[in-house]
Amino acid sequence: MLRPQNGFETLTTPALVLDAAKMERNINRLNAHATNLGVTLRPHLKTAKSVEIAKQLTGGINGPITVSTLAEAETFHRAGHTDILYAVGIAPQKLPRVQALRAQGCDLVVILDNTAQATAVADAGVPALIEIDCDGHRGGVLCDDPTLIDIGNILAAKGVLRGVMTHAGESYTVRGNDAHAKFAELERSATVRAAENLRAAGLPCPVVSVGSTPTAHAAQDLTGVTELRAGVYMFFDLVMAGIDVCQIDDIALSVLTTVIGHQPAKGWVMVDAGWMATSRDRGTAHQDVDQGYGIVCYAQGQVIPDLIVSSANQEHGILSLRPQSDKPMPDLPVGTLLRILPNHACATAAQHDRYSVVPADGGALQTWHRFGGW
Amino acid sequence: MLRPQNGFETLTTPALVLDAAKMERNINRLNAHATNLGVTLRPHLKTAKSVEIAKQLTGGINGPITVSTLAEAETFHRAGHTDILYAVGIAPQKLPRVQALRAQGCDLVVILDNTAQATAVADAGVPALIEIDCDGHRGGVLCDDPTLIDIGNILAAKGVLRGVMTHAGESYTVRGNDAHAKFAELERSATVRAAENLRAAGLPCPVVSVGSTPTAHAAQDLTGVTELRAGVYMFFDLVMAGIDVCQIDDIALSVLTTVIGHQPAKGWVMVDAGWMATSRDRGTAHQDVDQGYGIVCYAQGQVIPDLIVSSANQEHGILSLRPQSDKPMPDLPVGTLLRILPNHACATAAQHDRYSVVPADGGALQTWHRFGGW
Repeated sequence: MLRPQNGFETLTTPALVLDAAKMERNINRLNAHATNLGVTLRPHLKTAKSVEIAKQLTGGINGPITVSTLAEAETFHRAGHTDILYAVGIAPQKLPRVQALRAQGCDLVVILDNTAQATAVADAGVPALIEIDCDGHRGGVLCDDPTLIDIGNILAAKGVLRGVMTHAGESYTVRGNDAHAKFAELERSATVRAAENLRAAGLPCPVVSVGSTPTAHAAQDLTGVTELRAGVYMFFDLVMAGIDVCQIDDIALSVLTTVIGHQPAKGWVMVDAGWMATSRDRGTAHQDVDQGYGIVCYAQGQVIPDLIVSSANQEHGILSLRPQSDKPMPDLPVGTLLRILPNHACATAAQHDRYSVVPADGGALQTWHRFGGW
Repeated sequence: MLRPQNGFETLTTPALVLDAAKMERNINRLNAHATNLGVTLRPHLKTAKSVEIAKQLTGGINGPITVSTLAEAETFHRAGHTDILYAVGIAPQKLPRVQALRAQGCDLVVILDNTAQATAVADAGVPALIEIDCDGHRGGVLCDDPTLIDIGNILAAKGVLRGVMTHAGESYTVRGNDAHAKFAELERSATVRAAENLRAAGLPCPVVSVGSTPTAHAAQDLTGVTELRAGVYMFFDLVMAGIDVCQIDDIALSVLTTVIGHQPAKGWVMVDAGWMATSRDRGTAHQDVDQGYGIVCYAQGQVIPDLIVSSANQEHGILSLRPQSDKPMPDLPVGTLLRILPNHACATAAQHDRYSVVPADGGALQTWHRFGGW
């Protein structure tokens, strides 16, 4: 019987566990890569939603960050961050909250991709980046679409055109560094071309912002780009491991759970972590290896060969060996603590209101608050 | 242009909206059915997680409820509920919290399906129901398994055997009242048989508890059963509508969202509700009609023909017409408020910390707190 990680027995399961040493390694990796590329890293905090993690990501300074909600912008501004990009297309109704934050000294910048938004934003005097569509993933204008210049003119007339940005969400659908590097070049070429088009029209474009976790790690040359964004890189997850952005051993986030029963005839072990603890995300379902609702580890973190969460109800998880496994089912008595590596850290973390942090120095568990909402 | 529901313009989108009139109708429907069947209804609060909704479900008395977490048990006990079933197999480590609630006067009962749990529960002096497996869905002992009597003996020796319970989770996989009625009879026959086996062994079995939302509505005869449980019936959702437990018009829960852009060449409308607001649940994916991440309605609630949330990122939803639709895409300018009916109310509600309630009398919006955690 393996000894549980110190302090886990004090937690109510399911609980979200963060391995600070792995997180630190992941943060250092992308920081070093951004430095080599000569761009500013603007971490996206939509996944972490934690003031403590924001500090680690920005090296203790109140440096540039990206957010996905105004609740994040407000919370991180209260924590001292003053340079914030809100990277979801702005709804005009949200502009009063943006203006209120700006009036408090926060340089909050919004994004948009159409003239209706641009008119509202220009009237509100809020700086904006124009979202560029580099890969057909969701929003954005094409870099050669004349609408780009229309939007630029509307913003520039009120002095609020800050630049352009893009996100290659399709990079998640391909595997391997070479494939991700091609999407990184798509992000770079589309935004640099858009910036050139704006400048050729006599408009300013100081900021050229790109990024997604796969492309940020794979980018080889970001000439013309001023800043890089990424969100899940501090934690990583099975989706990122499944496309070779990280190794399983890099995953810093897991769900602690307790064995509550067995169905031996079916080869099932029942645990008290269901989809309420892991989320309903099945992001590995269409990857080369379907990880169910997650890979199962002993409490200290060693992966149990071929054991996955094969099914999940609200507060129940069912563990079983992969269909073709020749591995034995280990003895996991009622009361055994286990850890589940998540498919998608953004979705799993969102199910919890705190991180139980295993410090890098091996000291006592710490609790870091995690917030949600809009 | 349709006038938005009064007060929606004061909400930050995405927001969880609850139609109190529809909820009341849904509650009355199952209350009347339980009365006709001659059983006590013990509502499951795992979906609602709201003190206000608990009051509505129990008719203002502090009547019997079911919960899925000890956080629910503690919160509802503080709100006055004293008869609570915690319907997830007990982890022995959680017994001190159960004992603490019982010491405060809460008749909190746990469930279990193995002798290891039974020994821990008996030693702790905590009353328990034995979980019966009626359909192979997840946990439970078979009604004729000798283990049932072993467990019964362990519990009865300490005077904590309360009875048996089951949940036909497989009833969600079939469609129509007749199919659900067969699962209701499976629940009834398995638990009544288990109760008879316990009694034949000289053991007490006062409680015989069954239920799931589909079987609760379809049950025709519950002879031998003492209580009925159901969880999602106050809200309903597209999964329940897809198996004919309710109509689309009965769904009381929706996500309010704002249009933020368009990709006309693709037939896409972009909104500010992504999976963070709807959850990642794709429960209709394997039903006869795949509803994507939800059906789209105007702000007042009328369904927009064939418009669904076809794709979702963290804070972005993409609306498009169903593939074979011959309906026109309506004009939905930037800033338009819409509502999304969810696949799975349990998962969608869990993404939010409050209900914005449209009162049955049509008065001003109310805010009801919703809690989470374990």
